[in-house]
Amino acid sequence: MNESISVASAALALKQADDILIITHKNPDGDTLGCGFAMWAALTSLGKRARVANDGIIPARYTFMTDEYEKRAVADFEPRFILCVDTAALKLAGETMYEYAQRADLCIDHHGTNEFYAKQTLVDAESASACEIVGLVIDELGAQYTPYIASCLYAGVSTDTGCFRYSNTTASSHRFAARLFDSGIDFSTLNRLLFETKSRARAMLEQMAVASMEFALDGKLAFITVTREMMSRAGCDPSDIEGITPIPRMIEGVDAGVTLRELQNGNWKVSVRTVSLDAAKICSGFGGGGHVRAAGFECSGSAYDVKCAVTETVKQELGD
Amino acid sequence: MNESISVASAALALKQADDILIITHKNPDGDTLGCGFAMWAALTSLGKRARVANDGIIPARYTFMTDEYEKRAVADFEPRFILCVDTAALKLAGETMYEYAQRADLCIDHHGTNEFYAKQTLVDAESASACEIVGLVIDELGAQYTPYIASCLYAGVSTDTGCFRYSNTTASSHRFAARLFDSGIDFSTLNRLLFETKSRARAMLEQMAVASMEFALDGKLAFITVTREMMSRAGCDPSDIEGITPIPRMIEGVDAGVTLRELQNGNWKVSVRTVSLDAAKICSGFGGGGHVRAAGFECSGSAYDVKCAVTETVKQELGD
Repeated sequence: MNESISVASAALALKQADDILIITHKNPDGDTLGCGFAMWAALTSLGKRARVANDGIIPARYTFMTDEYEKRAVADFEPRFILCVDTAALKLAGETMYEYAQRADLCIDHHGTNEFYAKQTLVDAESASACEIVGLVIDELGAQYTPYIASCLYAGVSTDTGCFRYSNTTASSHRFAARLFDSGIDFSTLNRLLFETKSRARAMLEQMAVASMEFALDGKLAFITVTREMMSRAGCDPSDIEGITPIPRMIEGVDAGVTLRELQNGNWKVSVRTVSLDAAKICSGFGGGGHVRAAGFECSGSAYDVKCAVTETVKQELGD
Repeated sequence: MNESISVASAALALKQADDILIITHKNPDGDTLGCGFAMWAALTSLGKRARVANDGIIPARYTFMTDEYEKRAVADFEPRFILCVDTAALKLAGETMYEYAQRADLCIDHHGTNEFYAKQTLVDAESASACEIVGLVIDELGAQYTPYIASCLYAGVSTDTGCFRYSNTTASSHRFAARLFDSGIDFSTLNRLLFETKSRARAMLEQMAVASMEFALDGKLAFITVTREMMSRAGCDPSDIEGITPIPRMIEGVDAGVTLRELQNGNWKVSVRTVSLDAAKICSGFGGGGHVRAAGFECSGSAYDVKCAVTETVKQELGD
């Protein structure tokens, strides 16, 4: 029977541990990094040895976390306790961390899909971010919310909720944010860093993407198309495309917003975002998948052919 | 001496009043409307007669407030008590409301620039939104936060903080939001309505605005220019321009983001948003004003001349 342990039990396990390796999930995002570095700082403040490791590159906007970590010149050590944070499955630890994650003593997570691969698991699927759970554990450990720890935790709760905009936001997320504000974070700089800074290249790509917008099915379906030529004209790298996909769904009346991005091999990466339709179902017919409101697939052919095929599928889903 | 009265005094004045006319500021936004309709519902729930009036058009995204109001078929009456909300100066009540606002008994506001034109004024410049203050008054009145009242208040605190993103956000804003979540609001639908829905016209205007972007002072200053011709080409009304002004400041490296919007009379409405510079100081030299990171002014002349003058001022502020 897979059952979550309590916050108190998780804190007890950490209290009894030392030489703790904290593993975040691969391609780390704000929540997993916030968990990792907040936990590192909290454990260190209690006199324990800890370090953070992950598979993949830490995006530049999170260097406020790593700067402090590197300044403290964290020593290497043979881990005697392994903690995985925000990592629902073993394979999500990534190739370079797989060996360690297999021996995980504790996993703290907020994914309902957690595979209970660790010896003990603290999971709360109602929590908008894993950082909110890590915050409770830090409290239970008796460590202080320093401005650094609070900043890491804020990065987690704010990015996982789209700055308190997404439907996973809870009253607890807001109360947690208030507590972090009280701990002296520079939330204004953090918000600018995390949500309000775009490269010129990205702004230009966005502008071209919006200019490419086309509508079908009485405005219920919107397409934007991002070609390799557009990306090179804007001077973008592939990470710049990420925030583009929500744009077509934002248009009034649109139920399915679809982004076609041309890949290096000439194929199309198609991202589908919906208001009420089942995006995963729409994409499954094209060999793709995902969540109910956000899914995708990859295919070949002309942009026109792809759009026609998607239009046909969405039309059926709309029951027209 | 201009001094704010207490929340308790404001509530007492309202308890003793009846036939209350609530006036929002002209060109009403989410905060002033949230204040107005929440206060209307709270006063009505206490058995008082109240109505809401304003100068200007209520944007379509706020019809969730007016739908309920119209359903209740609020009767007209000769007001015996006048309450102005989120309205810092008499002239901001607008032409059609000016006569009433002159006789205001009470003003509830969060602008440090409040002119204390009402007989009594409750102002807290630390509050991110006027709705947070209205929330306190409603509590003091002993009225319940119904889902309708909470939704109105949420519209205020969320729009005035850019969904908890802007630097005016406080720990109290988050605690207030948590309280509103507890009151059973459908925040997810509200967030989509308030922050994730754009008309096609708006998307098109945004695209043209970004295409118009120009940089000065080594990229520290960015301009976007929105002409009447662009607005008519996109099919926009003036309310569509509102979310445009934060765009230039979002670009990496920009300290002052400036939006020039051409008015019907050919003048320019200039909005200045800054990262570290004093926007109010920049605008004061042009006869305008506002907050430290968000200010504006109106002027005549060619767009080119306006941009040159602003560049000169910003250059001085940067100390170059």
